[in-house]
Amino acid sequence: MNDLFEEWPHRRYNPLKDEWVLVSPHRNKRPWQGRTEEIAPSSRPAHDPECYLCAGNRRVTGAVNPDYRGPHVFANDFPALLGDAPSFASDDPLFRAETVRGAARVICFSERHDLTLPELPVQAIRGIVDLWAAQIEQLGRTHSWVAVFENKGALMGCSNPHPHGQIWATGFLPDEVRREDAAQAAYLARHGTPLLLDYAGREAADGSRVVVANDHWLAVVPYWAVWPFETLVLPRRHVLRLPDLAPPERDALADILKRLCTRYDNLFGIEFPYTMGWHGAPMTPGAQDHWQLHAHFYPPLLRSATVRKFMVGFEMLAEAQRDLTAETAAARLRDLPDLHYKFKGE
Amino acid sequence: MNDLFEEWPHRRYNPLKDEWVLVSPHRNKRPWQGRTEEIAPSSRPAHDPECYLCAGNRRVTGAVNPDYRGPHVFANDFPALLGDAPSFASDDPLFRAETVRGAARVICFSERHDLTLPELPVQAIRGIVDLWAAQIEQLGRTHSWVAVFENKGALMGCSNPHPHGQIWATGFLPDEVRREDAAQAAYLARHGTPLLLDYAGREAADGSRVVVANDHWLAVVPYWAVWPFETLVLPRRHVLRLPDLAPPERDALADILKRLCTRYDNLFGIEFPYTMGWHGAPMTPGAQDHWQLHAHFYPPLLRSATVRKFMVGFEMLAEAQRDLTAETAAARLRDLPDLHYKFKGE
Ligand SMILES: O=P(O)(O)O[C@H]1O[C@H](CO)[C@@H](O)[C@H](O)[C@H]1O
Ligand SMILES: O=P(O)(O)O[C@H]1O[C@H](CO)[C@@H](O)[C@H](O)[C@H]1O
Repeated sequence: MNDLFEEWPHRRYNPLKDEWVLVSPHRNKRPWQGRTEEIAPSSRPAHDPECYLCAGNRRVTGAVNPDYRGPHVFANDFPALLGDAPSFASDDPLFRAETVRGAARVICFSERHDLTLPELPVQAIRGIVDLWAAQIEQLGRTHSWVAVFENKGALMGCSNPHPHGQIWATGFLPDEVRREDAAQAAYLARHGTPLLLDYAGREAADGSRVVVANDHWLAVVPYWAVWPFETLVLPRRHVLRLPDLAPPERDALADILKRLCTRYDNLFGIEFPYTMGWHGAPMTPGAQDHWQLHAHFYPPLLRSATVRKFMVGFEMLAEAQRDLTAETAAARLRDLPDLHYKFKGE
Repeated sequence: MNDLFEEWPHRRYNPLKDEWVLVSPHRNKRPWQGRTEEIAPSSRPAHDPECYLCAGNRRVTGAVNPDYRGPHVFANDFPALLGDAPSFASDDPLFRAETVRGAARVICFSERHDLTLPELPVQAIRGIVDLWAAQIEQLGRTHSWVAVFENKGALMGCSNPHPHGQIWATGFLPDEVRREDAAQAAYLARHGTPLLLDYAGREAADGSRVVVANDHWLAVVPYWAVWPFETLVLPRRHVLRLPDLAPPERDALADILKRLCTRYDNLFGIEFPYTMGWHGAPMTPGAQDHWQLHAHFYPPLLRSATVRKFMVGFEMLAEAQRDLTAETAAARLRDLPDLHYKFKGE
């Protein structure tokens, strides 16, 4: 069966989103004559006087950043969501709309302009995990969803090279979350255990899609991965939300993130672009036992630092498509060293 | 209400896909310091001896293109789908997969290497419409879905500048189609008329989102548009599939396509990149009266020829987001001239 899937076009089903992906493993051989991406130079200073995210500098709005050390969070100067929108809704079946309230924040990973997540010491990453958890806890008191994510690299729409992530809190449950919520609820009702807890157990036992693992966490290329080197980070026990993690689990998460992102960077010898973010149980009241905390990493690169996967055409109008199997992608990442390419020879 | 939506963040609902989009009209003012795109030079020869799509040239596989004139279709040399995959399926709820069969073809719009869709005469576009219809009819005899689409521009993953589209036929109903199928069936059951027929009537009467129109067709920026200048092309009468169009309707479609794509190019004075494609009733047996034929145009550019919209972060992990309202986008496109910028002064 696995041999068959390494050779023939097939579809795999994503039970978390109720979506399929078309896998065409034979297609990776085609020559690429299309667009190639530029690689940004990765030599940045530790502090850049022109960077509006660096400590002590002035932002576009005139506000001055404090002289922070470690992770630092502040309100987004150009928020997509506002706290004070007037309430209004239209329920015409063809023209349905509603005003929304929310908040948007930026989180600088550290004062260092030059160090991305995997280049930070594990203890510094642990500090980011703690700040993510604290933000979810705080914003979750007044919002039903708190989106914690990072757009890494210019290729992924990141508009400032200072390593940072974002937090968008909303008064509504966004589409992707609503879909995962429904799928997980249906699975729990049917099987009696949370979908992603079962899944993590099966992946740990099988091993073929595991990239890195430790006592508390697993990072796998999911069976239904859409992006070439997509991964899913899963706790081994049942956890609803980031704030629920015990201190040893947070340390272990920092370890997993460092090792996963180091492998990403080592794959093509560049700061590997991606969108990553956390999905946990919504902050809305009611039973959330069907939920299992997890992080998605969606990286666009396919063959090299300059050739990306385009999700266009068939993908936008019909269904996602990929050219290498999840097992091949996992094996390639797994086989890479734990030492970041920039640290070689140190 | 429309005033409110021009100023405040809100969500709009897409009844065709059962999805929402977050609209943040106040956000378009933010400065852009992120990635800018390169614009490909648009001076190409009428025939390029190096192009594997041009008439009479040799392809990578060794096959030689005939000396074609007008639209020309042939089998994709690196198809994502094959006709002869062995049958196999796994129905494990967490590891569900199935082999698939299908076909992939390429359709050169004309022998001219230098002329994109809107630069062709209306009669030549009519020839493309006829070929699309014939392909759907032919491949639809043995496949349940025939995807007809164009990826235009390097930004949209197009790997050869010779103006061309693609046709992927599948033995299964892809995700996006399945979703539109369910939404349209539910609407017909509830309201007694096809969703997109009702919608076209309402948009024609309102006018604020109409970009171009003629006796048989309407191109609108849909109320729930996700991409900045996304459009939906709709017939005014109930039509299930492209092959069902009468000759005057095909002429009128060629006219609408030319005028819509001319406006796209005129917006920023470049060959405007996009993914476009046709959705019509699947070829599977059974009542398909809930379906209405339509084309989607998904163009990525936002502010200029070099600043695109990135669907990353919140969009990938939560829900689609846009910075200008559908009404603003429609007004900008509508106000552009019918004459292509390259033809000025001719
Ligand atoms: O077939 P092409 O033009 O080589 O490839 C292009 O279109 C395909 C179908 O939309 C996509 O899957 C590819 O990512 C894109 O680069
Ligand atoms: O907020 P930024 O970094 O300016 O913007 C970036 O992230 C946002 C949230 O994912 C996206 O909506 C934008 O398209 C992207 O460019």
